[in-house]
Amino acid sequence: MANIRGIAASPGIAIARAFILEHPDLSVEMRVVEDPAAEVDKFNSALEKSKADLRAIKQRTLVELGEEKAEIFESHLLVLHDPELIDPVKEKIRNDRVNAEYALNEVASMFIEMFENMNSSYLKERAADMRDVTKRLLAHMLCVKFMSPSAIAEDVVVIADDLTPSDTAQLNRKYVKGFTTNIGGRTSHSAIMARSLEIPAVVGTKVVLEQVKDGDLVIVDGLDGEVIINPAPDIVELYHTKRKRYKEQRAEWAKLRNEPTVTCDGHHVELAANIGTPADVTGVIDNGGEAVGLYRTEFLYMGRDQLPTEEEQYNAYKAVLKKMDGKPVVVRTLDIGGDKELPYLGLPGELNPFLGFRAVRLCLERQDIFRIQLRALLRASVHGNLRLMFPMIATLEEFRQAKAILLEEKEKLVVEGIQVADDIQVGIMVEIPSTAVMADQFAKEVDFFSIGTNDLIQYTMAADRMNERVSYLYQPYNPAILRLVKMVIDAAHREGRWVGMCGEMAGDPTAIPLLLGLGLDEFSMSATSILPARSQISKLSLADMQQLAAKALEMHTAEEVVELVKDFTEDSRASEMEAASTVAQ
Amino acid sequence: MANIRGIAASPGIAIARAFILEHPDLSVEMRVVEDPAAEVDKFNSALEKSKADLRAIKQRTLVELGEEKAEIFESHLLVLHDPELIDPVKEKIRNDRVNAEYALNEVASMFIEMFENMNSSYLKERAADMRDVTKRLLAHMLCVKFMSPSAIAEDVVVIADDLTPSDTAQLNRKYVKGFTTNIGGRTSHSAIMARSLEIPAVVGTKVVLEQVKDGDLVIVDGLDGEVIINPAPDIVELYHTKRKRYKEQRAEWAKLRNEPTVTCDGHHVELAANIGTPADVTGVIDNGGEAVGLYRTEFLYMGRDQLPTEEEQYNAYKAVLKKMDGKPVVVRTLDIGGDKELPYLGLPGELNPFLGFRAVRLCLERQDIFRIQLRALLRASVHGNLRLMFPMIATLEEFRQAKAILLEEKEKLVVEGIQVADDIQVGIMVEIPSTAVMADQFAKEVDFFSIGTNDLIQYTMAADRMNERVSYLYQPYNPAILRLVKMVIDAAHREGRWVGMCGEMAGDPTAIPLLLGLGLDEFSMSATSILPARSQISKLSLADMQQLAAKALEMHTAEEVVELVKDFTEDSRASEMEAASTVAQ
Repeated sequence: MANIRGIAASPGIAIARAFILEHPDLSVEMRVVEDPAAEVDKFNSALEKSKADLRAIKQRTLVELGEEKAEIFESHLLVLHDPELIDPVKEKIRNDRVNAEYALNEVASMFIEMFENMNSSYLKERAADMRDVTKRLLAHMLCVKFMSPSAIAEDVVVIADDLTPSDTAQLNRKYVKGFTTNIGGRTSHSAIMARSLEIPAVVGTKVVLEQVKDGDLVIVDGLDGEVIINPAPDIVELYHTKRKRYKEQRAEWAKLRNEPTVTCDGHHVELAANIGTPADVTGVIDNGGEAVGLYRTEFLYMGRDQLPTEEEQYNAYKAVLKKMDGKPVVVRTLDIGGDKELPYLGLPGELNPFLGFRAVRLCLERQDIFRIQLRALLRASVHGNLRLMFPMIATLEEFRQAKAILLEEKEKLVVEGIQVADDIQVGIMVEIPSTAVMADQFAKEVDFFSIGTNDLIQYTMAADRMNERVSYLYQPYNPAILRLVKMVIDAAHREGRWVGMCGEMAGDPTAIPLLLGLGLDEFSMSATSILPARSQISKLSLADMQQLAAKALEMHTAEEVVELVKDFTEDSRASEMEAASTVAQ
Repeated sequence: MANIRGIAASPGIAIARAFILEHPDLSVEMRVVEDPAAEVDKFNSALEKSKADLRAIKQRTLVELGEEKAEIFESHLLVLHDPELIDPVKEKIRNDRVNAEYALNEVASMFIEMFENMNSSYLKERAADMRDVTKRLLAHMLCVKFMSPSAIAEDVVVIADDLTPSDTAQLNRKYVKGFTTNIGGRTSHSAIMARSLEIPAVVGTKVVLEQVKDGDLVIVDGLDGEVIINPAPDIVELYHTKRKRYKEQRAEWAKLRNEPTVTCDGHHVELAANIGTPADVTGVIDNGGEAVGLYRTEFLYMGRDQLPTEEEQYNAYKAVLKKMDGKPVVVRTLDIGGDKELPYLGLPGELNPFLGFRAVRLCLERQDIFRIQLRALLRASVHGNLRLMFPMIATLEEFRQAKAILLEEKEKLVVEGIQVADDIQVGIMVEIPSTAVMADQFAKEVDFFSIGTNDLIQYTMAADRMNERVSYLYQPYNPAILRLVKMVIDAAHREGRWVGMCGEMAGDPTAIPLLLGLGLDEFSMSATSILPARSQISKLSLADMQQLAAKALEMHTAEEVVELVKDFTEDSRASEMEAASTVAQ
């Protein structure tokens, strides 16, 4: 028996035999060839086969997991169409008269190394994409079978060095009970996929592949980030119990699906979900979401080679509004730029894209793009409860300008005789410090705020959250962040506006007590976090949380805040038990 | 007679004959050569001659303008040593068998185009460096005389498309009365140099080179950004008067050199200067600086290929402290990273360097570098009034950690029997929003704050100030910035600490009334701004400025704040005149 610690990437407990997923040997040697044209043909044929593979995987992912997940394979297909990769490979074959495998490996390695040496998660993902595609191409050219997790047909725990996105997409939920890998973190593709598929997973163990043999009995504890190899029978028993308790808890949560979200002292808040595509709405409803708190419209614009038409957009917005059946849908207008690029817009590179020309800044200049989106949204507004918000607002002028454009487009539609809802709330994302500080002035002009903590934290702390060297400064619990959140909420409430939050913080069990206490009205999170959050909130009292929040604002450091929340929730549990025992006496 | 508008880049009025500074024709054609080795030799020889030129210009600049300005030529020398430029040129000569001029032109153009297409002022400056160096190399290889402004020996106004840094460095203050260019902005090299040299300049006119002929009479109005070509005699007279008035004003200012800085209602503030090198101290004293408010120590580390030794640093710090003769000297510890790179540290590139691994973040990890600097500073502390501050502090932990390291180094020195001053104030830069928001907590632990507005504004507005597409968001007068400044000042005063400001805002005549009203204690600016600022402050009343600041905090937009300041200062002038006329009656 051996215990290995890793990162809890997807909750749940899996107990099954190990299935070692190792990719075949794809090492290549250089050969001088007589007939470079034949090598180019071989390369072309591998390209075509790989495209066919990926189209099929993409289609399956689309059906099973939705558009957002399928995007990964769109990125892979883009790599296969990228002349910056393909042309140099062919040139190398012809100029150096070498075999295609070698030429591909050389060119791809250069790009991968280059991307990886950039200290950026974004480019590291591009490196991962290129590595995955290169393996697929090499397997075709070397005529070795690319090991496919889709072949698994008995209950297993998959053990791997890492799972590529295409591996994860091929995992069959019916048989794959869990997985564990040597590398990866909570936000790596495989971890995100595991949570979507609801497969327990522990990643980043560093050593699991070396320590497990095919057929070993393995427990993957995705709740506490542990992997146990060949456990003793009493340990297996223990984990059966743990799994049972977790399932009971989930069943408990499921009962809350159609319940409102209310604290134990009767304060109501709204739990909403973040979505990227109309397909995601099913998950929102299944998980008891009371609203869509953030509909990211970027996915309509990404992974394609031209702007979406007004009609395409109208259909997507209408689909979401109809599916949500009268529940609020907060749509964020295009937030492109920063780490999200649209190659077909041909925007120049920037030295600091996170501080650059993005989101509403771009929309106010490229009004051709902005107006089409607004028109599509306005037209869709009659099909449900549309709320609209502008991202990256830094000044009141920007909001006024964006709202004026919206009203112009509305006016035009009215003149054209097209129906538009009259009660569309218009709000802003609060994700730039200046806007938080000026919230009192904004509150007089907007209908609502949605705090985007991911960006707000990175600007307030001046630390790129994608940059590992400064990621210790990405501190959601820093009292500075809590104070800004308070400023926004207090300012909004003075003017009778509501405040939501759509950053990762809104679904975080440590943050929820604080945010409740600060007076947050709407919490928007991943759909799968809604029921646990509702359960958590039902056990908290608003009065206590207000006390907690007031104390947190006076702490010195993020660490102290975390300690405080821990102590406070433990204390209140202890006094609950005391009260219970007093009653019993 | 013709009037041309441009950007007022350096104050003053110049009236003189035009001297057109145009660079010789350096266009090159491709020739296939018999003897590539001879071309490589020609290129090598041009490299050596250019290095000799640049070393001489650098030396002269160092003596006349100080180390910071001489850095420009250090960058040029680095280009001449850069294998990424030199090797491809030689390869091209050998592989393509072409003439050296053509090979250089091709390779350099590629780099210049690449740098210019990046939307970054930093890389655009690198493009300008490379263009300047390429011209110099081409002139040597083509055996044409590189036109040198140092040859000017009669009173002139220099007219050019643009002045390269090496042109500006060669301007002889005795004869060059002013200059004007087609391109450039207030922060281009030539503009900064003009202000240092105190030569009136108007840049960015777009057309002046086309409209002026050699020998035309030209007025350069560096106060209002105008150029007048062949003015009528009455206009010349007018400008003689304007020049006289400006000179009188300067004489008036000069009288304030040894005066304290006091408002008309008796409130004292401190006017300090920002410096980069010991040589800059002369300017501080000449301009009546009461302190050094920011000594940027980066220059000790830049333009070299290894870290400065403890001894080199000690000597520099000691020199500044001694020259300042007991007046306070606020030294900022190493602020490297972001747009300031040290190639010899081999730091990996970052996707958003302004939100990256820089300043104290780097120093806390690279304690080897940090401790040597602290040791040198501590040793120098006995030679004057040293104050020490850490840049880019985002959390209390960072400050505590940095201060603990300082105390450890102090302890070590004491054990070694080396004397260290006992009254060194230890403060922080406030340039990250989180730190401004948490100023009340920081104020309990630091001795002082220095607000770094350049960074504080760019983080608060989430806009890279170097990025032209979002530079409209770099808003010093945005009420959000004023509110953060107020938070910092109020928090500090409650704990009996003082607050300085060392960003560009501190020397800005529109900001000064607001900052006074907000309670700022120390204003640190370019040395040449000190006397005008002292004169301005002596005419303002603190009570009025407090009223003004309170109103500004309630404005909606930066524009409204600017309007307010304008109205307020006009009103108070009007009421002053009214009061005066009442008295007269």
